[in-house]
Parts: sequence; C-alpha cells; structure tokens
Amino acid sequence: MSDQNESSREAVLDFERASRIGLDEAVFCTRKSAPQIESILRAFDARDTACLLTHLDPEKVAALARELRAKLDFDPVSGTAFFRDPAPKPRALKVAIVSGGTSDAPVVREAARTLAFYGVEATLFQDVGVTGLWRLTERLEALRAYPIIIAVAGMEGAIFSVLGGLVDSLIIAVPTSVGYGVAPDGELALHSALGSCAPGIVVTNIDNGFGAACAALRVANRFSTRER
Amino acid sequence: MSDQNESSREAVLDFERASRIGLDEAVFCTRKSAPQIESILRAFDARDTACLLTHLDPEKVAALARELRAKLDFDPVSGTAFFRDPAPKPRALKVAIVSGGTSDAPVVREAARTLAFYGVEATLFQDVGVTGLWRLTERLEALRAYPIIIAVAGMEGAIFSVLGGLVDSLIIAVPTSVGYGVAPDGELALHSALGSCAPGIVVTNIDNGFGAACAALRVANRFSTRER
Amino acid sequence: MSDQNESSREAVLDFERASRIGLDEAVFCTRKSAPQIESILRAFDARDTACLLTHLDPEKVAALARELRAKLDFDPVSGTAFFRDPAPKPRALKVAIVSGGTSDAPVVREAARTLAFYGVEATLFQDVGVTGLWRLTERLEALRAYPIIIAVAGMEGAIFSVLGGLVDSLIIAVPTSVGYGVAPDGELALHSALGSCAPGIVVTNIDNGFGAACAALRVANRFSTRER
Amino acid sequence: MSDQNESSREAVLDFERASRIGLDEAVFCTRKSAPQIESILRAFDARDTACLLTHLDPEKVAALARELRAKLDFDPVSGTAFFRDPAPKPRALKVAIVSGGTSDAPVVREAARTLAFYGVEATLFQDVGVTGLWRLTERLEALRAYPIIIAVAGMEGAIFSVLGGLVDSLIIAVPTSVGYGVAPDGELALHSALGSCAPGIVVTNIDNGFGAACAALRVANRFSTRER
Amino acid sequence: MSDQNESSREAVLDFERASRIGLDEAVFCTRKSAPQIESILRAFDARDTACLLTHLDPEKVAALARELRAKLDFDPVSGTAFFRDPAPKPRALKVAIVSGGTSDAPVVREAARTLAFYGVEATLFQDVGVTGLWRLTERLEALRAYPIIIAVAGMEGAIFSVLGGLVDSLIIAVPTSVGYGVAPDGELALHSALGSCAPGIVVTNIDNGFGAACAALRVANRFSTRER
Amino acid sequence: MSDQNESSREAVLDFERASRIGLDEAVFCTRKSAPQIESILRAFDARDTACLLTHLDPEKVAALARELRAKLDFDPVSGTAFFRDPAPKPRALKVAIVSGGTSDAPVVREAARTLAFYGVEATLFQDVGVTGLWRLTERLEALRAYPIIIAVAGMEGAIFSVLGGLVDSLIIAVPTSVGYGVAPDGELALHSALGSCAPGIVVTNIDNGFGAACAALRVANRFSTRER
Amino acid sequence: MSDQNESSREAVLDFERASRIGLDEAVFCTRKSAPQIESILRAFDARDTACLLTHLDPEKVAALARELRAKLDFDPVSGTAFFRDPAPKPRALKVAIVSGGTSDAPVVREAARTLAFYGVEATLFQDVGVTGLWRLTERLEALRAYPIIIAVAGMEGAIFSVLGGLVDSLIIAVPTSVGYGVAPDGELALHSALGSCAPGIVVTNIDNGFGAACAALRVANRFSTRER
Amino acid sequence: MSDQNESSREAVLDFERASRIGLDEAVFCTRKSAPQIESILRAFDARDTACLLTHLDPEKVAALARELRAKLDFDPVSGTAFFRDPAPKPRALKVAIVSGGTSDAPVVREAARTLAFYGVEATLFQDVGVTGLWRLTERLEALRAYPIIIAVAGMEGAIFSVLGGLVDSLIIAVPTSVGYGVAPDGELALHSALGSCAPGIVVTNIDNGFGAACAALRVANRFSTRER
Repeated sequence: MSDQNESSREAVLDFERASRIGLDEAVFCTRKSAPQIESILRAFDARDTACLLTHLDPEKVAALARELRAKLDFDPVSGTAFFRDPAPKPRALKVAIVSGGTSDAPVVREAARTLAFYGVEATLFQDVGVTGLWRLTERLEALRAYPIIIAVAGMEGAIFSVLGGLVDSLIIAVPTSVGYGVAPDGELALHSALGSCAPGIVVTNIDNGFGAACAALRVANRFSTRER
Repeated sequence: MSDQNESSREAVLDFERASRIGLDEAVFCTRKSAPQIESILRAFDARDTACLLTHLDPEKVAALARELRAKLDFDPVSGTAFFRDPAPKPRALKVAIVSGGTSDAPVVREAARTLAFYGVEATLFQDVGVTGLWRLTERLEALRAYPIIIAVAGMEGAIFSVLGGLVDSLIIAVPTSVGYGVAPDGELALHSALGSCAPGIVVTNIDNGFGAACAALRVANRFSTRER
Repeated sequence: MSDQNESSREAVLDFERASRIGLDEAVFCTRKSAPQIESILRAFDARDTACLLTHLDPEKVAALARELRAKLDFDPVSGTAFFRDPAPKPRALKVAIVSGGTSDAPVVREAARTLAFYGVEATLFQDVGVTGLWRLTERLEALRAYPIIIAVAGMEGAIFSVLGGLVDSLIIAVPTSVGYGVAPDGELALHSALGSCAPGIVVTNIDNGFGAACAALRVANRFSTRER
Repeated sequence: MSDQNESSREAVLDFERASRIGLDEAVFCTRKSAPQIESILRAFDARDTACLLTHLDPEKVAALARELRAKLDFDPVSGTAFFRDPAPKPRALKVAIVSGGTSDAPVVREAARTLAFYGVEATLFQDVGVTGLWRLTERLEALRAYPIIIAVAGMEGAIFSVLGGLVDSLIIAVPTSVGYGVAPDGELALHSALGSCAPGIVVTNIDNGFGAACAALRVANRFSTRER
Repeated sequence: MSDQNESSREAVLDFERASRIGLDEAVFCTRKSAPQIESILRAFDARDTACLLTHLDPEKVAALARELRAKLDFDPVSGTAFFRDPAPKPRALKVAIVSGGTSDAPVVREAARTLAFYGVEATLFQDVGVTGLWRLTERLEALRAYPIIIAVAGMEGAIFSVLGGLVDSLIIAVPTSVGYGVAPDGELALHSALGSCAPGIVVTNIDNGFGAACAALRVANRFSTRER
Repeated sequence: MSDQNESSREAVLDFERASRIGLDEAVFCTRKSAPQIESILRAFDARDTACLLTHLDPEKVAALARELRAKLDFDPVSGTAFFRDPAPKPRALKVAIVSGGTSDAPVVREAARTLAFYGVEATLFQDVGVTGLWRLTERLEALRAYPIIIAVAGMEGAIFSVLGGLVDSLIIAVPTSVGYGVAPDGELALHSALGSCAPGIVVTNIDNGFGAACAALRVANRFSTRER
Repeated sequence: MSDQNESSREAVLDFERASRIGLDEAVFCTRKSAPQIESILRAFDARDTACLLTHLDPEKVAALARELRAKLDFDPVSGTAFFRDPAPKPRALKVAIVSGGTSDAPVVREAARTLAFYGVEATLFQDVGVTGLWRLTERLEALRAYPIIIAVAGMEGAIFSVLGGLVDSLIIAVPTSVGYGVAPDGELALHSALGSCAPGIVVTNIDNGFGAACAALRVANRFSTRER
Repeated sequence: MSDQNESSREAVLDFERASRIGLDEAVFCTRKSAPQIESILRAFDARDTACLLTHLDPEKVAALARELRAKLDFDPVSGTAFFRDPAPKPRALKVAIVSGGTSDAPVVREAARTLAFYGVEATLFQDVGVTGLWRLTERLEALRAYPIIIAVAGMEGAIFSVLGGLVDSLIIAVPTSVGYGVAPDGELALHSALGSCAPGIVVTNIDNGFGAACAALRVANRFSTRER
C-alpha cells in the first residue's frame, strides 16, 4: 500500500481551523497511542502553538518524552491537558456550570478547562440536584446572573427541565453516563434533555463537556453580553 | 379441535379473585369483540355482580344490547365503565392524583375511576408541571395531606423526582405515552421514574392508571392511615 | 373524584412565564381537542394577550368558533398559528435557517414562525444539501453573515458536520423525521448531530423547530450581536 | 474556574431530607473515591449522625482511615455499610423479601439492610422460584402474613405474576440483572414486572433493593398495619 | 427487464416439499393480492391438490372467483383456509394447546387448524392463566396426558415457566403480540419464553401458531407416542 | 433479618423435579461462589445422587475440596461437569448436533454433555457451514437418519433455514454469541432462527445448548423413534 | 421570513449531477405533494430532460396535470415513473436480480426500472428462495453468467450467504421490509446481509432497490465486463 | 458423543473456495486458540498453500511453533497475517482507501492487507475528514482517478455522503466502531452509510475492512477498468 500522507505528516493537522470556526483543532486522545500523541505535540511545538488535549489518561502522559511532559498542564479528573501555555486574552463571557454532585465532576471539569483554554473562567455550582430542590431555589438569583448555563447531569436528568422553567439564559444540557439499571450509559439523561417540556434547551452528546464549552465559545465568537 | 372450556363458558371468569387478592377481575377490552364483552357481562349479570371494564371504546359500547348498556356507567375520556352499580362502602383512604395537563387526562381518570369502583374518592391536581414550578410549590402543603400520591406524567417525567424529594408519601409513578421525537411512547417517562435519584418511588407500566389504583388498594387492604 | 383545578380553569395557564424565562407559554395542540383549545384561546382573549399555537391541524382550526378563528393567523405547512396579532418589536437578531429540500419545510417553517412571533425575521436557505456540495460552498459567505444558524435535516444529517467545520456561528441542529429503512424516524439524523466530529454543535429534539427558535431567543434575551 | 461550593463542603449534604421525606440521604458510592467517601463520613461524624452507604466495595472500605472504618458495619454481599450505629427504634412493619436463589442475594440483602437501618427487620424467603412451584405454594400462608412483599427476581421474572395472583399484599417487584442470552441485564425481568397481568404490582429500577426498602418505609411513614 | 420465471408461473410452487420435509408449502397471504392468490389456487386445483392458506383476510376471500371460494373452508378468527378438502388420515398424535384467554384465540386457532389440515385434532385449554393459578393446577392431570403442549401467551408470558416446571411433555411456546406499554408487540413474551428458568422449553416466532403446529408435525414425522 | 430457609439449607434443592418433568435440577454456576457450589455438591453426595453442573469455570473447580473434585468429570470446553457418575441407562434416541466450526464448540459440547448425562450419545457434525454448501449437501443422507437435529450457529445463522428446507426431522436451533459488528451477541442468529421461512423450526435462548438437549429429552420422555 | 431560493426555484435541482457522479438527480416523492412534483416536472420539461421518479403513488399521479401525465411512464408495482422518454443508449452490463417471491416484487422492480432508465436490461430470477434450495442450485450456471447480482430478500435473508458462497460475482444485497414478529421491518434481513459469513457481500438500505441499481451503474461508469 | 469430522480434520477447510467464488477461505482467529490456529496452518503448509489470517492478536502469534511463525508476515496494527508468501500476480485494479485519521488505521490496513494478499496495491488517503473539508476538496482530482473507493469512517460518518456526491466511482463504505456517547460502537456510522442521500453507496459490516476488500476483488473477478 502507498500512503498519500506519510511524507508530510504535519499536513494532517488543521492549523487554519481557528480562522474558519473560531476554535482550534483539539486532540482527542482515546484511540491514539503515546507515540502518536507525541508526534502531534512536536508538530505544535515546532509552530510555537498551544493545544488542548481531551480524553487523555495518566498512563499516556507518563509515556511521553520528558521535555514534552514539562510543557503539559494535565488535569487527571477531566483527562484534559494544555500543551504549552495558551495564554488566552481573558474574555468577559459569564458561564455557570451546574451539576448535582461528585459523580459528574469529570465532565464539569472538561467543560471548565476547555473554556479556560480560551480565556473564559466559568463558575461551578456542583451540588444543585433536583432531589434537594432548596439547593437550587436558594441559588436562583446567583444563577440568573449567567447568560449561559451549562447543566451537567446523569441518571434521569430532571434538572434540565426544572432549570429551563426558571431562568431565561441559554441552557446547554450535557447528559452524563452516570447511573445504573435502566439508566446505565447516559441515554436516559440525554433523552430527558431532548424531550424536555421546557422550551429552548439545547443538548450535546453524552459526557461531552468539551462540546458544551465550544458551543458557548461560538456564542462568544459573535455576541456580546447585554447589560440588563 | 375440541375445547375443554367451551361447555361452561362462565368458568373462565375468576369470581374468587377478590377473596384472594382483594381485587375483582376487571375486563380488559382491547382485543375483545362486542359479542365477547356482552357474554361476559351476562355472566356477571346472572350473578348480580358488578364489574369494572377498562380500555373500552364507544363503538363497542354502542354495539352492546340495550338492556346491558342501560346498566353501564361509561366514561369516554378514560375508556372505563362500571357494569351495574358497584355501590362500594366508602373508604377513608386519601389518594391524590397529580398530573401536568389535559394530555394525561385519560390515564388520570382511569386511576380515579378504578379507585371510585372500590369506594375511594381521589383528589385530582391536574396542572402541576415542572416547567412552572410555582404551581407545584404553591400546592405542596395540600399535597402533603395525602399519604399516597399517584403521579402521572409523559415526556421527560421530571415531576417524579421533584415530588420524590419533597414529600414523605408513597409515590406511585405512572408514565404516559405522551410525547414526540425521542419520547414517542412513554419509554422516556418510564425510565425517568425508574432511574430517579429520589428514593423509594415505585412505578407501573406505561399508561397503567388502573394498576396504580390497584396498588393503592393493596395498601388499603392491609393498612390504616396513621394520624400525624 | 374531586378536582382542585376545575373551578378556576384559567389558573392552569402560566401567564408569568415570559417574565421568568423570556418566552411565553405556547399551546402544544397534539392531544388537545378543539373545545379544549377554544377554552384556552378565550382565556388569552380575556386578557388581551396573543399566543402561539404549535402542532395544530386544519381540522381543529375549522372546528373553532368563528370569532376566534377570525383572530387566528394559521400556517398549514408548519401547523402553527398566531392567536391575536403578537405585534412584537422587531429584533435585530440575524438567524439563518438552512435545509436540504421541501421535505423539511414543516420544521423549517415552525422555527421561522416561532421567531416571527417574537419579532425576529429569519432568512431561509432551503436547498443546501450535502449531495450537491456546491450549493453550500457557493452560499458560504452569505451564511457566515448569520451569528446563529439553525440547520434542519433528516436522513443521515451529514450537513451538520460539514457546516460545523466551515462557520464560526452558533449552530443549532434540528434533526427531522424524514427518511426510511434504517432512518425512519429521525433518530439517525439526531445521532449524527450529537455524535458529530465538528466541535460545539448543539441539538434539539427531532422535528423541534419550535425549540431551536426558542434557543435562539434565549441568546437574544441576554446577548447583542457583535460587530465584526 | 471558581467553585461556589468548595468553601463549605458540608453544605452539599442534605441533612434536612428526613424531615421532608422521612428518609435520610444515603451515600451512593459507585463513582466516589475513597477520599471523597472519607470526607463525607467525617461530615456525618462531626454531627454525630449515622448514615447508610450503598454500592460500596471492599477495596474502598480498606482504603478508609482506621478510625472511620472502626465505626463501619460493612456487609460485603450487598455492598452496604452503616456508619455509626443508627440505633433505630424498632418498627412494627412486617416485610417479607422473596427470591429464587443465591444469585439474587446481593439485592435481597441490600433491601434487608436498608430496612434494618430504619428499625425494620425483614423476613427472607430465599428459595421461592417458579420452576419448583411447590416451594411457593407450601409457604403461601406464611407469606400472606406480610402486608408488604418485596419480590426479587432476574431471568424471566415469572414469580411477580404468580405472587400477584395469590396474595392481597402490596407487592414491590425488584428485577435483578441475573441472566444471559436474551436476558443479560435485568431488562426482561423489569418488563415482566411492569407488563404483568396481575393487578397492582409496582416496580423499582433493576437491582434497586435500596429503592424497594425506601418505598416500604414510605408506607410506614404514613400508615399502620391493619389487624385482620 | 426479462423474467426467467414468468413463462411457467406454476414452477414457483414447491410441490415436492412434503416428500423432503413432511410438510406441504403453505400460502402466506400477507403481501399477496387476491389475483395472485387466485392464480396460486388454480395451480393447486389443476393438480387436484389441497393447500393451507394463512394470514388470509376476509376481503381477499370475497374477491376470489366464486368457484374457487366454493372450495375454500375459511376461518376468519385465525385467518386460515383449507383449499379443497385435505382429507388427511387421522393421526394418533395428542397435542394440547393452552392459552390464557380470548385475546390469544387467533394464534391458538392457527395452530389448531394447521394440525387439523394434517389429521391431528388438538385439544384446547383456553382459560389457563397465571393470575388465577387454580385454573392451571386443577387441570394439571388432564394436561399431563398430552406429550406435546403448545403454550400460547402474550404480555409477560409467565405461563411458560410455570408449565415447564410441572410437566414432562415437550412444550412449544408461542409468544403473542398481546399487550401494551412495555409489552406492545410480543417481544416481552418472546424473551420470557427464551429466558425461562424451566429447562427444555422451545420457542417460535411471535404469533406463529402455524410454526408451532409444524414443529409438532415434525415430531410426528419421526416418532410414535410412548405408552406410559 | 431472619431467614426462613437458613436452617435447612438442603430443602432448597428440588430433588423431586425428575419425577415431575423427567429432568433433574442442574446447577447453573455463573453467580455461585466455590463455597456455595461445594455445599450444593455435599447435599447431592449425602443422597448418593449424581448431578450436572453448567457454566462452571476451571477456577471454581480448582477451589473445590479435593474429595469432591475427585468425583467430578469436568469438561473445560463446555464448562460442564458431572458430579458422581450418573451411570444412565443408554437410550436409543438418535440426535445429531450440527455446527459450522470451532467457534461454536462450547455450545455444541454443552448440548452433547447434557445428553450424555441422561444416556444419549449424540453425533456431532462440526463443519457444516452455509458458505461451503457442499459440506452440507454431501452429508444430507447421513443427517436424515437423525429424527432430532440440534443446529448450533452464530453470525447470520443461515444454516437454520437451509436445513429446515431439506429434512423432515425436528430441528432445534441454538443461536450462539459468535460474531461482531451488527452481530455481536447472538441476537442476529436468534432472530434468523425465529424469523426463518422454513416451517416448524423451534428455538432456544442464545448459547443454550443445555436447553436444546433438555428439549430433546422431553421428546424422549414421551415418544419412541418410529421405524421408517 | 425571507427565502434565498424562492425567486429562482429551478436552481434547486442539481442538473450537473450526472457530470460529477454519472447519475442524474432522481425525484424521491414520499413527502412531496402533487403540486411540488408538478413544478419539478415542469423544470425538467423546460430543459427537455428526462427524469426518474421513485416512491410515487397512484394518487399523486392522478393529481398531475394531464399534459405532464401524458409524458409519464408509471409502474404502480414499484412506484417508479419515467418522465419523458430517457431513451438511453443500451449498455452491455449484465445484471441479475434474484428474489424469493411476489412479496419482494416492488423492490425488485424498483431496481430493474432504475437500471432500465440508464439503458441496462436486468434479468429477473423471482422464485429463488432458500427453503426450496433446488430452485437455486438448478439455476446456478445461469446465475454465474452475471457479473453483478442484486439479491433482494426479507425475513431472515439466508439467501445472501448461500449465494455468496456459490458465485464469484459482485453481490449487492437489498434487504426488504417483508416479515413479522421478530422480523417486522427488514432489520433482520439487513443484519443477515451485513453479518454474513460469505466474504465480500455489500449492502444497501432496506427496500432500496434504487440504490442497488445505482451501485451497479457506478461499476458500469468505470469498468467493462471481462470476457471469461 | 461421536464426531463425524474428527478423523480427517483437514476436510474442514474449503480449499476449493477460490475456484467457486474467486476468494480463498481466510482464517478468522477471534475465537480460535493458538493450538487450533497452529493445526490449521499445518494443513495449509502440507498443501504448500498460502493463507490470510484476520483478527489475530500478538499473544497468539507468540504462542505458535517457531517454524510456523517464521513463515508468518504479521501486521499488529490490523491484526492480519500472511502465512507463507502468497506471491500473487500484481493486478491492475486501482483502489483508494480514504479515512479521517489514526483511529481508523486498523480497519484501513485490514482492507489494504487483504488486497495486497491478492496482488492489489491500494493507495491510502488517511487524513480526509469532513470537519476540515479543504483536505477532501484539495484531493478531489487525485481521488477521481480511482474507480473503487473504500471509505472508512466512525463517529457520524458524514464523509460517505459527501464523497458520494462528488465522484462517480464505486464507493464501498466501511463504518468503524470509533466514537462515544450516542455513537459508541459504529452503529451510527453504519446507519449514516446505509441511509445516505447520495445514490449508490454500498456498505459492509462495522470494522469489516476485509469484506470491503473482498467486494473490490469480486469486481476485479469479472470486470476490467475502463479507460476514460
């Protein structure tokens, strides 16, 4: 077999993506070996460009060359890493990330880290579950200050509908693969978000904190927060 | 083919059921023709016994013999009928039936009518949806007066979890086949009820208002309401 | 059975919703009978308030009282109606709605009509399919002018990913129930949108043009278009 | 990212839950690390409050601080633990837990232990399967003494229907993930319970012995056993 | 297009099947038009051969030529017909067909009629449901006289397991598409039969009474009933 | 919790099963620990009774007490064992087991060993696949000598239909969990068997060689092979 | 709403498609109204261009303007039509279309008509089913003459694997939505084709005779039949 | 049990397959143990015949006898091996294999290696994804030179439709099990390929690079590339 790409491996990376869609190409590490990741990082390094890695596990980090690892800011909870300091301009966008507990933390942090890569500091509300509704109603005024709310939930995902009836912000629902029995893999939370009675909720793939952050950044690409 | 039952058709009916399980055999009409229903009603008539019919449609009612129809109390919304007056002793059991709107009315009324057949008058709260949460919180004290709450909901069924975190009553969730897209047939509401974070919610089949009422009656078979 | 809501039917409607979430309660007509719709319209009429109806079919319109019908602006393609002139203040929000052909027209128009009810005039691009890619690339500059793009597609929904790699706008994907064989009910297009490689695409329920429009309006609640 | 909850971690726990719903917040350990569990236990310890842990595995128990472990009553079969002695007032509620064999023991014991945490001593009937029907019929009178029967079964779950036609008690069906081939994960037993011909059976999520016990406790919150 | 079969349409029929597998080719009418059925019947007529038709509806019967209709013994309940008198030699095979009620009658009769076409007179037990277990236990001795029992059931199909633990006969389970909610189309009964704890139950497709009868006839092809 | 069975553990075993259904209770080992299996074997030992174990793995065998292990005839391919020599009377029943290759061997041998436990020696045809049809047609006469054919196949299971059109024997189809992609777990082979065009094929659960053998033994309970 | 396409409706059609992919744009009529079809036909008429319509039903044909209808060659069995005579150059490509009976005729003819539109005359073998294997083996030499075989089958689709092991031609499998019970909608035949043991079978969507013909035409675009 | 095949194990292999279908029997290793593979290789060795192995893992290779391993050309990425040098005559067939990145490499290489076994050298285009559309459009002329394009993609598989609208070649789509959330196992890419709007795309099982190559070889069996 002959390979049309082998000679100029760097060509594979889409360095022009940010100019088209306002977002850089991130490196999704699930099926990539440590050597493959290493060769990608060197391509970024050669261009003095930072990059975001997702779905990265500690074993692969440990297998990277020391000088690359030294440039890596790795967060094991979310499996994200910044290669080289992105040093983004801080952006004024206010984003809240709401979740029900520690089980959803990996997805919450993937969203927060993706936003941070682009200069947006999100605020986390990590104990807002539906079963103890007072935890949500007590925070309602605080939550209303955020024009974008990323809501992260597994199991039956009832929080999406409750929030959607209480605030006028853009709500981006991220279902998570937390649950068991009839709700093993996030499909129930996904369907609850899609089938919600509350109008105007939008949804990402299961566990896709990265995608929710990118959607928020797409808003920031084109809009400015309105003063109330 | 020879038929071991044909000679004594009446034997098919389980007239002793109430003595075993505290509930009479109800007539589920979906796949029964009008003549088949008629012959069953005559068997009850011959024994001077009332019966409850479910999933009955107006066309079949219209096709029954006039003298049987005269003894029928038919409710077209729920598709239930009482054949002969059951004249039950009123029971002290307090049951609330909670739902979000007119779409769930057939199931709500099937539950209420089944309870009425056995002498229990349920109270209906038919506009308690999650999207307008104030409608639920305003009624909370009223709802807490009921030791059994039958909650009826379609779509994403978020009400089950919200209720489950607010009251200490027995909550019987009845998912309904109301919805579209990812939630066409009640499966989403069913899974939301089963996979709820709120502890101790129990669930019936989709659209099974009859079953929820029977579960409440099973409680009444064996328990007395405790004074608070 | 006794009904806690029957006495004051009007209470069921959530007239305060707009103040909470920036969107009025719309009337979803699928399981509502013409008399039920009529009684809801009279409640709005009594308050001199306009309302949006969705999933309304011509038979029910024909069954309404003449004086109500006279106040109805009905669009049979999308099954939407405005009751009383909403007379919204025009809003500066620029929204494009992109689709591949006439099959998706009902959903496209549901989104457009919902936006119109709130004073947003959307621009439609109704022949942008992936099979004839030139129809998309020719329009790319025109599309980039819109900070929000609602993309409507059935079948395999390949347009979502292609668009997501070409523009930096917020893309709201609406899968439609157009297709056959392995793709009969919109689930394939839904999953293609959710599972897209393109970062930051958000998704609504199948055929939910109304929901996509509401999400765009949630953005408009809180943001102003940024000059480029 | 900034965290609205980090400063006062204890606030996350819902210590008021029992006053609302008659059940304390239990600690579901599946996605919680040993350090996270440890910090939760310390919060309970600081308030001199007992708590119930579910889905806890021996590895996490072994990783806890010795002084916490000393206060832990751990049952490896069910994966439940009592932290500090709950010392409940014994309750008069009579509950039978019925199952077909050793495979269902983890779920049976999760239900029994949850009841014990609240002062209810359940009676176990662990060899009642449908294939050897005499084992059920021989015990029928004994079973009828229990106003609540928690029935635990995997595979095709035929026991739910058989029991439902023989006793007038409240039957709470718990499908289990025991089986293979077409019945690998408990869905068949779940559907058998929901779709049973026997009237008034209510159902919990797959393997949810905890939920079934909580439902029984909800009955006990509000009802007293009736003398026969 | 040219057609390799058009010239000799009769060739399509497999008149030699009985010599190979002991069963004639039956005519499955679902997607066949009345003219197509008519042409098939004429082919049988020309050979003085009887045939069995299944899934035939009254409208198609009415549309057949009068002289063909005169040779048709049609049963509208099961949708089966005998074309020309099969006049089979009576066979000694004893087959019981067990079911729970009138809803399963079409499938019960399809099995009985198929057996009758081949000279086997089945005995029907049509009121043997699990909810009223006494109806089964009372008949147990009678049932044990049959070395082959075809069990027909919809909903949760609990009868398959109960029977399988009580008799030593060959049990052929036929799940039916009777039910609603989680059990709408027979899949639950099918899985209950396949996943039964009782050893040695064999299963046919949903509603396939014809197939169950053919399996019984395959036994009769090769075996003789053993005296007890 | 108190346990109604603990005192007389032996009572759990159904030693009378053979007299009812002609088959002993087999020990399904999947969720049983080595100590649990050991205690069951001792109960059999105390009664001088042989038993069949299925789904047994070598690790559990190695963990048994030496004196029990000495009485165990274990087959690692099928995961079956005979505890104590069953020493069955040889039976005249002729059974063929047909399969396509080495992947199906565990299921083939589970069926063969179950038959052997009851004195039936099956003949194996292990290379009969549809892709090389000549391997089937060459053996056709040999196969026709068997009045019962157990057909074992994974993937698309085409062999069931081909066989069903060629022989007049009773065909018991056992789908296996061999395959990948759209056919990962045996469901495709299961559905091919159930949905086959060939009349009178009966089916067991996926991988259920034990069940197929039991069905053959049920035939042998009541029938004698007919001379041709 | 403003529409970017309304002014020049004709632009929607992709008249350049044939030059890109060797196939014209066909008109899929399922969700198109008669007026919409009419306006498309007029666009073709204005350019003196023939077109192929699929999934067209007689009611829509009857509703077309008479002068358009006069130019329509409509086949009601397949729901296809040629608008204006395509008058293709006959092509030498030899294609066989194999199926098991009259139920599959609509799909068989859709494939044959699509080929005819482009000048390829297919040969039909419409009685080749697996249950009567001799009908296939008798025709084997005839079938081998065709370098492309389109195999059309519903139910369990066993023919795909059998053919794939017997001929060296390109086999394009078209599963059809013929069946019932576990095989109601063509998914079983689809999976049988995809999961076949026979190497190198390729597959189209369910009922997609048009697609299979297009695949054959793509071969003809680039290849010539090799003499043997 | 007696085994009809054991004596002449070699007979299992289908050495005549190539003469029937133009493809040799390949050895699918997933459920074969190293000793089983070894015995198959010895059979080939004894006949001086090369063979292709698929789904082979390095552990099994390491467990083979040294002299067999010496004749093995093993590729760990694709899990394929050539046993003995096939030394095929080079064939003129031009095949391109297109994919989006390193995750799909195992499937890409399985296809390429299968082609190489038969003398066809494929050209790989491994960075053609839809999100960076320019990578496809830049290569379009190069791709059009190939009359057969094997397109390999996971996730939402949008590339199939885009390609299908741009080239006139035969496109064989191979969906891969790359993805997460709603797209975990390749089913989404499979359905996108089957449900594509682009006409004439044909599809193989998930991850079946071998099958796609075999389909290309079936074309080569019977056709010659046409000069343009």
